Amino acid sequence: MSSDSPIGVFDSGVGGLTVAREIMRQIPNETIIYFGDTARVPYGNKSKETIIKYSRQIIRFLIDKGVKAIVIACNTATAFAREEMSAEFDIPIIGVVRPGANAAAAATRNQRVGVIGTEGTINSHIYNEFLNMTNPDIKVFGKACPLFVNLVEEGMTDDPVTDAMIKRYISELVNDDIDTLILGCTHYPLLRHAIERFVGPDITLVNPAYETARSLKEVLLASDLMCKNPPAVPKHEFYVSDGADKFKTLANTILPCDVRDAILEVLNE
Amino acid sequence: MSSDSPIGVFDSGVGGLTVAREIMRQIPNETIIYFGDTARVPYGNKSKETIIKYSRQIIRFLIDKGVKAIVIACNTATAFAREEMSAEFDIPIIGVVRPGANAAAAATRNQRVGVIGTEGTINSHIYNEFLNMTNPDIKVFGKACPLFVNLVEEGMTDDPVTDAMIKRYISELVNDDIDTLILGCTHYPLLRHAIERFVGPDITLVNPAYETARSLKEVLLASDLMCKNPPAVPKHEFYVSDGADKFKTLANTILPCDVRDAILEVLNE
Repeated sequence: MSSDSPIGVFDSGVGGLTVAREIMRQIPNETIIYFGDTARVPYGNKSKETIIKYSRQIIRFLIDKGVKAIVIACNTATAFAREEMSAEFDIPIIGVVRPGANAAAAATRNQRVGVIGTEGTINSHIYNEFLNMTNPDIKVFGKACPLFVNLVEEGMTDDPVTDAMIKRYISELVNDDIDTLILGCTHYPLLRHAIERFVGPDITLVNPAYETARSLKEVLLASDLMCKNPPAVPKHEFYVSDGADKFKTLANTILPCDVRDAILEVLNE
Repeated sequence: MSSDSPIGVFDSGVGGLTVAREIMRQIPNETIIYFGDTARVPYGNKSKETIIKYSRQIIRFLIDKGVKAIVIACNTATAFAREEMSAEFDIPIIGVVRPGANAAAAATRNQRVGVIGTEGTINSHIYNEFLNMTNPDIKVFGKACPLFVNLVEEGMTDDPVTDAMIKRYISELVNDDIDTLILGCTHYPLLRHAIERFVGPDITLVNPAYETARSLKEVLLASDLMCKNPPAVPKHEFYVSDGADKFKTLANTILPCDVRDAILEVLNE
């Protein structure tokens, strides 16, 4: 493991690619090894114990591949497993929650912040915790939107049914007079335009993917781990636990690079 | 293992409970051991190899519990794994597809049958195969409805969004002039009323759960495996791989018996 080693990024499926995309944009010399746990997607309605077990398996796999740092590109896994995994493994592990919470705390003017995410993320109250660590006066309004992940996975990002569900899930947050809304699930940036249409220009949308890539850059700089001998074109690698072809198709619509292969990798429980 | 042993029933989650419900109605002296693979739900968009692996683990678990027969209460697992599992294990294994296909073949008058199910089930063309085995003149119209399982799991069985998705998925089958529609996923009977409202009284809905319980009864009778010393009240057991409380709540809305416990059981891969 050296500063030229790759960065490990994982998620339950394709959602974490919104984080990988930001990393590719902000620190383009870095190489990514991505793992999408497509055999066990979704994570959002599973228990803490199960998510910790799955995260541990994936982190071991990524460490075996020689990564220098790990990004948990999944809000549910960050909420349930980041702390435990940081204690278990001797490698920097960056989650998506703290960066998103910091950005929202900086953006809000009326101290009323909405968070949308999976049941697991919302019920963990992890965003409340980090937001109030930064500013105890912030009032946090959380709303679980369990169907959003499925709508994204079905490619229904611009669809009247999705608009109806956005209205149903988010109306109460708008009524709560929030001025900032955290997209607290890595699938949700793919619904950004539809959500913007509904909430209008007065509510600031916070995409933790952007902030997470910025945090990662800071951690690499602070630990002297930025790539020193950048390749002409980084050779990113993509591993999935099921459905490699479907993943590849979706990845090519999300990422700026050409994803030629997604490799099937079965993890041992 | 004897004729008084229990029957093993499994599914990716709660959908198979519609089959368990029919077994309890039709052969009420039998005891059921149910396994819901809630840690890895849904199965419908996963690969054949993955579904075979998961089915094998669950069948081993059920056989260790001493069951006398197994019902694969999941169309996707039936489509991908029933044949392989029957070859591997020396115990009667009943799927949900053949009974449903037989009932539809008997019901149709114009030889035009629609099938709705998961991507896995529809793309396997297994219903076409069984329908045409019975009657080669039947024309089969399949339609994958991937969002239905999620809508059911969210409890949205009577909801305008669900109605909109029913219209979108099923309109083309109605236009194809089908007179019979197979509910080819064990979650779908929970949408039966909403689907009936949309298709009207001229299309016969076939619920394979009902037919599967009938097939099971026939197999038990033929193998002299019907329970001979019935308990006063059968003590059904429910195992899940995650989220026992959520499962218990849903199970109590679907089943006629009182589900007091769902036991967490982690399977080895």
